[in-house]
Amino acid sequence: MLANTTHLFDVATKVTAGDSRWQGHTSDDYWAFVGPFGGVTAATILRALIEHPQRSGDPLSLTVNYCAPIAQGAFDLDVRLVKANRSTQHWSVELTQDGADVATLATAVFAERRPSWSHQQAQFPGASPFERTLPYPSPAMTWSKQYDFRFVEGEPKFGSAMVTPPNTYSRLWIGDRAPRRIDALSLVSMSDAFFGRVFHARRELVPFGTVSLTTYFHADAGDLAAEDTTRVLAVADAKIFHKSYGDQNGELWSPSGRLLATTSQIAYFKA
Amino acid sequence: MLANTTHLFDVATKVTAGDSRWQGHTSDDYWAFVGPFGGVTAATILRALIEHPQRSGDPLSLTVNYCAPIAQGAFDLDVRLVKANRSTQHWSVELTQDGADVATLATAVFAERRPSWSHQQAQFPGASPFERTLPYPSPAMTWSKQYDFRFVEGEPKFGSAMVTPPNTYSRLWIGDRAPRRIDALSLVSMSDAFFGRVFHARRELVPFGTVSLTTYFHADAGDLAAEDTTRVLAVADAKIFHKSYGDQNGELWSPSGRLLATTSQIAYFKA
Repeated sequence: MLANTTHLFDVATKVTAGDSRWQGHTSDDYWAFVGPFGGVTAATILRALIEHPQRSGDPLSLTVNYCAPIAQGAFDLDVRLVKANRSTQHWSVELTQDGADVATLATAVFAERRPSWSHQQAQFPGASPFERTLPYPSPAMTWSKQYDFRFVEGEPKFGSAMVTPPNTYSRLWIGDRAPRRIDALSLVSMSDAFFGRVFHARRELVPFGTVSLTTYFHADAGDLAAEDTTRVLAVADAKIFHKSYGDQNGELWSPSGRLLATTSQIAYFKA
Repeated sequence: MLANTTHLFDVATKVTAGDSRWQGHTSDDYWAFVGPFGGVTAATILRALIEHPQRSGDPLSLTVNYCAPIAQGAFDLDVRLVKANRSTQHWSVELTQDGADVATLATAVFAERRPSWSHQQAQFPGASPFERTLPYPSPAMTWSKQYDFRFVEGEPKFGSAMVTPPNTYSRLWIGDRAPRRIDALSLVSMSDAFFGRVFHARRELVPFGTVSLTTYFHADAGDLAAEDTTRVLAVADAKIFHKSYGDQNGELWSPSGRLLATTSQIAYFKA
């Protein structure tokens, strides 16, 4: 049963409409190391676009560049419809606080998705059912307490010796701690909810920060409504760690085996 | 031997410096279906950033959103340093023609990459040597004549019946037709030089256009100079085709087995 009261995630990503300038506020419930959890920042930006009166169609792609830390408190979102075509829209969003430099820079594409030849090439990774998979004990970070992580494979092994080659692949269920129906907002937030691949590889927490995140949406609002689920089966892996930056690529699947979103990011680390 | 004369690719991606407004020009040598080849547009944007007097560090990530067709002729690049930190820079670039709507919108991150723990998790795909791999006959599009494609696996099979499941994976050498040393500019252009995955899957040409392209650079200028190569071993695959959009993910490797760049894109198709 989904609660009828407002979900913490919806409170955290709440925006107040303006003309081209919208307002938001950081959430103590989704706090990370030195600022808000990047997934919630991305979701807040996407919410401003989805709620924008000029918006048409569904999110197709979102890229978020994390330029500088965001301080606790209010922020402004400068929302701009850069170009609208017959069936696509291109947006840009700049997040600022108190008129200072841009802290987050995002671009998004929305599309009215028309029927076409359809084929899912990637294989559903499969997993033990959510209910029979053990919840991962909540790490110290506030934001991660808002999620129910259930590792099927590749859970973090902190404090043990590194192995060769390091394991950077994870397969896990992710749901909101208080169940919430999966929508585009939760998909983008969950895109950034994997633990840093470098933590898995090195088996330790190291200074880490996502620099740029891109998520592609492969299900529109109708597809997501049809799935009607509160969790995704997520996989993530890394290809390289080099000169202080490492990548991550991930997939978010519905329990029924539909690929809902793919995501990639490049992140800073110190190790 | 590399020619000492100016390479076609460098002519095609030439930019003229302005203050915040730079100029470029489409190239008939890199023309695609209904506009310039998107890889060269992306490389031109990246060149403006690399040549910008305020630029510091190497390209780390580039996202290019193709908003509208670009007409043959001159264009302006509005280049903006959105935020500079101690070791990273965040840029945005808008391409316009004759003061009209934005045709291409890009964001980029540059970074001064410091030594760190380094590990290449992805496996080098390997291939028969370039010299012993057959060149693919040039398709009709002008831009593709500027590249030397040598398929090791997954060459397009136009005009034959679709197979189940369709093959969307390709592994091929890519070099400039007239050899040119691989740099960040050629990497971003080659990121978009794969044939549309939907062409491979359907074994036919269908209306197709990249909507958003993201490339992460895993080698800085020093790393690329050390590789000193004129070709990459490239792999590409797709995960899904649904409601008129499909994805692509790819890797660009040096012949010695170093992962130079990873790339993903979402593209429109009609089928």
